Amino acid sequence: MAKAIPSRSENYSEWYNELIKKADLAENSAVRGCMVIKPYGFSIWEKMQRALDDMFKETGHTNAYFPLFIPKSYLSKEASHVEGFAKECAVVTHYRLKNAEDGSGVVVDPEAKLEEELIVRPTSETVIWSTYKNWIQSYRDLPLLINQWANVVRWEMRTRIFLRTAEFLWQEGHTAHATAEEAMEETRQMLDVYARFAEEWMAVPVVRGAKTPNERFAGAEDTLCIEAMMQDGKALQAGTSHFLGQNFARAFDVQFLNKQNQLDYVWGTSWGVSTRLMGALIMAHSDDDGLVLPPKLAPIQVVIVPIYRKEEQLAQLTDKLKPLIQELRKAGISVKYDDSDANSPGWKFAEYELRGVPVRLAMGARDLENGTIEIARRDLKTKETVPFDGLAERIKLLLEDIQRTIYQKAMSFREANTFRVDTYDQFKEQIEKGGFILAHWDGTSETEEVIKEETKATIRCIPFDQEPEEGVDIYSGKPSKGRVVFARAY
Amino acid sequence: MAKAIPSRSENYSEWYNELIKKADLAENSAVRGCMVIKPYGFSIWEKMQRALDDMFKETGHTNAYFPLFIPKSYLSKEASHVEGFAKECAVVTHYRLKNAEDGSGVVVDPEAKLEEELIVRPTSETVIWSTYKNWIQSYRDLPLLINQWANVVRWEMRTRIFLRTAEFLWQEGHTAHATAEEAMEETRQMLDVYARFAEEWMAVPVVRGAKTPNERFAGAEDTLCIEAMMQDGKALQAGTSHFLGQNFARAFDVQFLNKQNQLDYVWGTSWGVSTRLMGALIMAHSDDDGLVLPPKLAPIQVVIVPIYRKEEQLAQLTDKLKPLIQELRKAGISVKYDDSDANSPGWKFAEYELRGVPVRLAMGARDLENGTIEIARRDLKTKETVPFDGLAERIKLLLEDIQRTIYQKAMSFREANTFRVDTYDQFKEQIEKGGFILAHWDGTSETEEVIKEETKATIRCIPFDQEPEEGVDIYSGKPSKGRVVFARAY
Repeated sequence: MAKAIPSRSENYSEWYNELIKKADLAENSAVRGCMVIKPYGFSIWEKMQRALDDMFKETGHTNAYFPLFIPKSYLSKEASHVEGFAKECAVVTHYRLKNAEDGSGVVVDPEAKLEEELIVRPTSETVIWSTYKNWIQSYRDLPLLINQWANVVRWEMRTRIFLRTAEFLWQEGHTAHATAEEAMEETRQMLDVYARFAEEWMAVPVVRGAKTPNERFAGAEDTLCIEAMMQDGKALQAGTSHFLGQNFARAFDVQFLNKQNQLDYVWGTSWGVSTRLMGALIMAHSDDDGLVLPPKLAPIQVVIVPIYRKEEQLAQLTDKLKPLIQELRKAGISVKYDDSDANSPGWKFAEYELRGVPVRLAMGARDLENGTIEIARRDLKTKETVPFDGLAERIKLLLEDIQRTIYQKAMSFREANTFRVDTYDQFKEQIEKGGFILAHWDGTSETEEVIKEETKATIRCIPFDQEPEEGVDIYSGKPSKGRVVFARAY
Repeated sequence: MAKAIPSRSENYSEWYNELIKKADLAENSAVRGCMVIKPYGFSIWEKMQRALDDMFKETGHTNAYFPLFIPKSYLSKEASHVEGFAKECAVVTHYRLKNAEDGSGVVVDPEAKLEEELIVRPTSETVIWSTYKNWIQSYRDLPLLINQWANVVRWEMRTRIFLRTAEFLWQEGHTAHATAEEAMEETRQMLDVYARFAEEWMAVPVVRGAKTPNERFAGAEDTLCIEAMMQDGKALQAGTSHFLGQNFARAFDVQFLNKQNQLDYVWGTSWGVSTRLMGALIMAHSDDDGLVLPPKLAPIQVVIVPIYRKEEQLAQLTDKLKPLIQELRKAGISVKYDDSDANSPGWKFAEYELRGVPVRLAMGARDLENGTIEIARRDLKTKETVPFDGLAERIKLLLEDIQRTIYQKAMSFREANTFRVDTYDQFKEQIEKGGFILAHWDGTSETEEVIKEETKATIRCIPFDQEPEEGVDIYSGKPSKGRVVFARAY
């Protein structure tokens, strides 16, 4: 029996919530805004981590680990940084509990008050740049190319599993360079790594571009981003890469002797992606029957369900299937053989559909006789009966095809939902229907803010592939030299 | 030029601190008791993680993630658990900062006080069992075999890098079972996994045994442990595995319908190892010249240093060495080719010795002529000139031999420093010299505590391989049925 979830058209938001629950990905915890990532969800995240980590290492980065806690005074050292994060941080003020005098449990021990409060890191620029100060003296110590996998906390008032949670998991790269050019190159390189990961692994096409000054990271001189379109036409920022200029080096006095033997401040970057990507993955591809996972990130790529009535039939099927399973596993394909008798084949079909397993094989007595097997693909929901011989090779090609097809479907969807709009009336009409809107903008924060207030649409990015085109701002009528991407966003 | 460190005999404790610093493993951060794990140190920890994670998965466990924060009231639910952890926990009381009125920076916003304080997890039994309550209804939901890689915080007053830090990294397994027998089997299985990891990967021999009731984990009915001997003769607890009985199930009301259709409380285990293992690894093998790493955990297994005066010599050496490097990498061996001209060969030799690279190859013009190469092993500090041909195979065997030799050396050291002692006078004399003491104990906490107070020695464990032997307690003279392991410990 399938565990039904609401359809997307019925209630997109409930569809997302129920899908996460029914597919056993994650759940809310007893702690407000903090989630529990369940084993099945975590195994997808692990695959993401592994792929990203490999890409970071290929581009010369190494991992390290910095403290969870940040002294309160550190936050203040970079003016716009503290402005951005002070309003939502968890503060540690004491380091001990004691028994309540009325025996009702434990209370905070007022005598164990910290001299300086500690912030649970919302991001680690401050603690890392205070450390880099001791690591960098000369240009020979540069570049410093470090990444950290960690949990961070931002006390958000309105939370949503994976998309916006008080605690989330992420990686944060923090690099230091001798020149602005090199730091800018790194900023761009890491954005490209993210884009490649989104497109090649998650099968999610993304628009690459720069944020407007309003939307930049608190403390950055430039923020680059990748933006993906969800099936409801909303945008989701899937990764950001920041050019920090010399801001954090100045704040923490990180100077180095350059090749000309002169003291200069170090140039920095930071870049991160988080468990938010899980939300993007779910919302980009899944359908009313459940998850649709790209094969490269699917914990189970192939499930095999034997269909039998008697024990000896199962034994025969297992004999036939075992060499196939071994062959697939040897080729690096993760296979689950579900021969349990606790559930019916129909129940299993629905269950693995819900969990987004890309390929399902089913084999019964007749198949055994005919030398055939049924093969079904999750993404297109097609199935066919094919010869058993040569199956491993067929599956390998099929997995590649599914990966490609999922990407193309998402790409077609984005193309069909991207609109060039030239008047504010058209804009207001279109934004209600969703999608990305390419429109002229005069480059001012004022216009950006009015449009945001009136339509809830934000400028997602100034795309790198912007075509030079003379035009006028849809709102102000002032001149513009190219279109930017507007959308409502998660 | 070598970066000198103090010798072990001179000052063991300073040797440890300086080694960690000079070998670029870790350092203290600006936050009291919290460390920064530097890239080289972290790459060793990553290798540990990968090996352990593979072993957990082979034994049927999956990873998940639970919240960093624990509501204060949860801690109190298990009586001895709160007793054990309340005295050293970081407490979050507020969720926002605001600008100070005098413009001096940011202060805690008194209006943003949490209704219930949150504890930064010192360990996750409480938050996990409160979650398991919703996951377990029937015996069909069991066993639940889950592990988490996470950071935890215990506000220790006296800290020491890797050995005892306020924040540390670890894994914590939390499993739930239908029967006491199965939970006990799991407890023992995971201890054996830890022992196998310590011996086969870290090359550190360990004693397996059970803790005395006094030394048990807060909330456990039985705590199993592995104990390793450091080079100063002190013991280091390298991993623990706890049989929790039904304690946490009762505290969080986790009941299930068993096969007989009766409600019963679930049986639990938990088990963990931490970045403390880094301390054990360093102290077990390293020498006065620096780190000695077992090849299986060495980030760089082989370093190759070309010795040249002119650029064309370097080109010739590189031509000769390149195919070797490729061959070694293809065999899964991590190789660093250090042809930089910033440092002399002598400096490089000292540097890689300090960093514990197991095998060093050096090749100069004469070697090129003779078809030879110099090969040096870090552990024994021997070197020889060998034919260039067949080198890859030789290196593979050598790495295996080094792994074995390091283990055997540690094992011989432990054997030479383990003593059977029958009187309290002998005991007091021996404990000053260090080592493990096998002595009779009457099984009472009273005796254990007096001995601890008078000698600073604790019972490390009641070893599994205890020989039945009638005797009398060294202190009380009361009867005993076997010897336990006493030592001073980290």
